Amino acid sequence: MGKVISGICISVDGFVAGLHMTEDKPFGELPNIHQSLCKWLFGQADQNKNEIASLTSAGAFIMGRNMFGPTGAQYSTWQGWWGEEPPYHAPVFVLTHTARDSLSLQGGTTFYFVTDGILSALEQAKKLAGDKDVAIAGGAHTVNQYLKAGLIDELWLHIVPVIVGQGQRLFEEMPEINLEILEQRGTDLVTHIKYRILK
Amino acid sequence: MGKVISGICISVDGFVAGLHMTEDKPFGELPNIHQSLCKWLFGQADQNKNEIASLTSAGAFIMGRNMFGPTGAQYSTWQGWWGEEPPYHAPVFVLTHTARDSLSLQGGTTFYFVTDGILSALEQAKKLAGDKDVAIAGGAHTVNQYLKAGLIDELWLHIVPVIVGQGQRLFEEMPEINLEILEQRGTDLVTHIKYRILK
Repeated sequence: MGKVISGICISVDGFVAGLHMTEDKPFGELPNIHQSLCKWLFGQADQNKNEIASLTSAGAFIMGRNMFGPTGAQYSTWQGWWGEEPPYHAPVFVLTHTARDSLSLQGGTTFYFVTDGILSALEQAKKLAGDKDVAIAGGAHTVNQYLKAGLIDELWLHIVPVIVGQGQRLFEEMPEINLEILEQRGTDLVTHIKYRILK
Repeated sequence: MGKVISGICISVDGFVAGLHMTEDKPFGELPNIHQSLCKWLFGQADQNKNEIASLTSAGAFIMGRNMFGPTGAQYSTWQGWWGEEPPYHAPVFVLTHTARDSLSLQGGTTFYFVTDGILSALEQAKKLAGDKDVAIAGGAHTVNQYLKAGLIDELWLHIVPVIVGQGQRLFEEMPEINLEILEQRGTDLVTHIKYRILK
């Protein structure tokens, strides 16, 4: 059976996205944060190819409602931020309070909408992931919930050299958790640290 | 002339100390945080000798009142947490609201108590540091004030693999600040990242 991992791009001050996401602003309203936090993904694909692959190599994904789409009336027809062929190529479980039929897009990505909580989503994701990892993809609130519940095995931080000052903060209201450094390396645009969560 | 640097041990979730420091708890009341954040300093002196040296190699230091000592009646005679020979061997400017005569201890450390603000402390520290760097030693509130004011040239983070959950957080209420990665390396107990602050 695979592990439960969460790999996430994070600013030096601990934010993973801005506030007030809208249809054309998946990372919220801070003008530079999207580019700032993702630049290494696009600008240095060769140097970071293992880390880029690791962000989309899981056998199933879990994400929060706000990572899937902006709040608002278009929810029932919203197809995600990622176009016709999302990069997941696997089942993606979206935590939501509003039931919706599953949505299959090109390339093997199917979004399932889970209304009965994080444990249920994890159980379903593990079933479909088989031997592969389950990835808690984000956003901050979703990763924080799984961290708090002790359900994540490895945390892969991609620390981007910017202080953004506000937004959605990873590590809000955490218990004390000891980590073990498994790997660390970087380029001039990002520092990668892979932690095992000690239980 | 030297640079203004701040080197600080920080948890993965961005805390540099616990809450409620007392005479025997310089890092606050979280039972494990002192040991957690400093273990690499003592346990791996050889592997981290450049970083350890960098924490005390400045020509002058600035620290907040709470880093110098706990609040309480003994302030007028308190001599710091560091015993008879503090590791600074240089002038240390303590930001405080309560005037006090300077305090000279063994090995060249003299504490000066500055009541007229961060700019005045920096000006005095630069004068005494000569060609050497001025270090903003902590705690979180003091480093945050200097960061916000745009007065720090380099930020040296020593990221310790622990989530502590509460305490004094670096990077509170920051403006957006772009950084440049100058160096990054680590051991199994700590990740060192040296950032230049872009202005």
